[in-house]
Amino acid sequence: MKAAYYQGNKSFFIGDCTPQSPDIGEVRIDVLCCGICGTDIHIYRGHMAERINPPQVIGHEMSGTIAEIGDGVEGFQIGDPIVVRPLDSCNHCPACKAGYRHICQNLNFIGIDSPGAFQSSWNVSAQVLHRLPQDMDMEIATLIEPLAVACHDVRLGQIRSGETVVVIGGGPIGMLISLVAKSKGASVTLAEVNPFRIDLAKNLGINAINPVEEDLEKYVIGITDGAGADAVFEVSGSRQGIEVTTELCRTRGRIIVVAIFPEPQPVNLFKFFWREIQMLGVRVYEPDDYEEAIILAGSKRIPLGKLITSVQPLETISDAFHSLDTTPNNLKILIKCSD
Amino acid sequence: MKAAYYQGNKSFFIGDCTPQSPDIGEVRIDVLCCGICGTDIHIYRGHMAERINPPQVIGHEMSGTIAEIGDGVEGFQIGDPIVVRPLDSCNHCPACKAGYRHICQNLNFIGIDSPGAFQSSWNVSAQVLHRLPQDMDMEIATLIEPLAVACHDVRLGQIRSGETVVVIGGGPIGMLISLVAKSKGASVTLAEVNPFRIDLAKNLGINAINPVEEDLEKYVIGITDGAGADAVFEVSGSRQGIEVTTELCRTRGRIIVVAIFPEPQPVNLFKFFWREIQMLGVRVYEPDDYEEAIILAGSKRIPLGKLITSVQPLETISDAFHSLDTTPNNLKILIKCSD
Repeated sequence: MKAAYYQGNKSFFIGDCTPQSPDIGEVRIDVLCCGICGTDIHIYRGHMAERINPPQVIGHEMSGTIAEIGDGVEGFQIGDPIVVRPLDSCNHCPACKAGYRHICQNLNFIGIDSPGAFQSSWNVSAQVLHRLPQDMDMEIATLIEPLAVACHDVRLGQIRSGETVVVIGGGPIGMLISLVAKSKGASVTLAEVNPFRIDLAKNLGINAINPVEEDLEKYVIGITDGAGADAVFEVSGSRQGIEVTTELCRTRGRIIVVAIFPEPQPVNLFKFFWREIQMLGVRVYEPDDYEEAIILAGSKRIPLGKLITSVQPLETISDAFHSLDTTPNNLKILIKCSD
Repeated sequence: MKAAYYQGNKSFFIGDCTPQSPDIGEVRIDVLCCGICGTDIHIYRGHMAERINPPQVIGHEMSGTIAEIGDGVEGFQIGDPIVVRPLDSCNHCPACKAGYRHICQNLNFIGIDSPGAFQSSWNVSAQVLHRLPQDMDMEIATLIEPLAVACHDVRLGQIRSGETVVVIGGGPIGMLISLVAKSKGASVTLAEVNPFRIDLAKNLGINAINPVEEDLEKYVIGITDGAGADAVFEVSGSRQGIEVTTELCRTRGRIIVVAIFPEPQPVNLFKFFWREIQMLGVRVYEPDDYEEAIILAGSKRIPLGKLITSVQPLETISDAFHSLDTTPNNLKILIKCSD
């Protein structure tokens, strides 16, 4: 039983992980696999130091099975394949009371604000579990967490069949939003500058173009007979990305801000007024988004396996983080947490 | 019969206005009164030179009666009191085809892009007329146009009874939005820095505070038990105004961009993500907004008369514009267009 401890300064050490009996309301999980999220890379780069308590086990895009069940937990059995929805809400802040527990004002994001899943054995509250079908591929299952993000974003973006959607930024979330929007019947164009990711997107069946080589605005206006896109997802986190959103969006269209922008960005508010554009911020997922993601992953309707660049043992987690930190020619790297 | 011609360089001249028989589908209107809009002040300041063709009669916040009816016009009689909804749409652009004719991509804004109402006699298409009740006060009726803006903004902002609303900027539109939101049962706070306008707002029954003297964010968080406002209207057009919107808005709250921002502004997109905030641009009005404004103005439920600073003859229109251009101690000045 092993665990990868993040110790700051872009480094991990591998230590022991002693299974602990679950408390009341908790389960102990045998973690099978855990993906590296963009947020984990932010932690690795030192951008989230105020939320991390090194040495700390991080990680939240996991799959596993239930190893032990604490008192008071009902509805689960030992051996059940599960994923964790890593959000622990306070239930008493204004956001929770208004029904937005997923963006609780005192949210404990499990794997960031408290210990995560890059370890063989992990205890969590049973309230954050989602059971998987018995035949689910447990490597694919690690993608349910980011897929639930995409389901949430597409749901709040109100994407309907026949709409024209532009996704700016072809990292894992941009790819998944493109795939989920396509599964709703939308016509999707992904804008991405990295050739590796453009090729991968095309391999996934996504219409991808490079805005450095082709005029994105002209392209989108062209395919929409002068109207502009119904919805534009900003997933790149770049200034150029947010700037172009208002140029691509139709009258009364929607701009969905998925990326995290640490600094305020110049936004063309005149275009908002002129075209009555709407913009909405979206963050994480609600329980229904997880259930939708589980069904979608199980249905094999979208080629999730192609998003996985490699699967690596826990011992080489530092190399995996280094690779994601230094080259965009990766998409999703999974860490095997059990032998 | 007289007309005020805007000739550029912050000046008007008064000339003759010869009544013309209306074309097919048009009516000739005896204009009684026409208010000076913020947009007219933009024209006066030379900000909209590319849309104006001097010497040109401008003005669109009017009231009048039908003087003559062209062929093919049905449903109106000579003498009917009316207001004009000054939007002439192309009916074939993508926005029109999608049902958003009020923000047509080739919109002719009557009184800006074509001749307006600062004249005794004015011909317009019958399609832009709204009939008034016979007992409507015709000075109050000039406020139906800006009131329709406020009805549109409050409708798209989905303001509901019991909600907490902040309006930033206490010009005519900010005052009217405050009054309309109050009429829906919302609890409204208006933020305004000018003492004249703060006093006027209080006189209108609006809770007004000066953000220079009082911490607006602390105040709003205080009155909402830590949640933030349900909706924030940005009507000031100031950088400080747009910056504070994201600090005032609750989780999943709405920011409504009413003001015209000629330049891109820094927006805290992190807050959009973090709290899943929505922002929507709003512009002019749809026919239903006009009908709502007519009913509201006729009901006397909101004290519209108090918004009128003065009523001046057409001959002194230059003085009226100069006053609005140089001092904020005005709200709405009306110009009498008939003797």
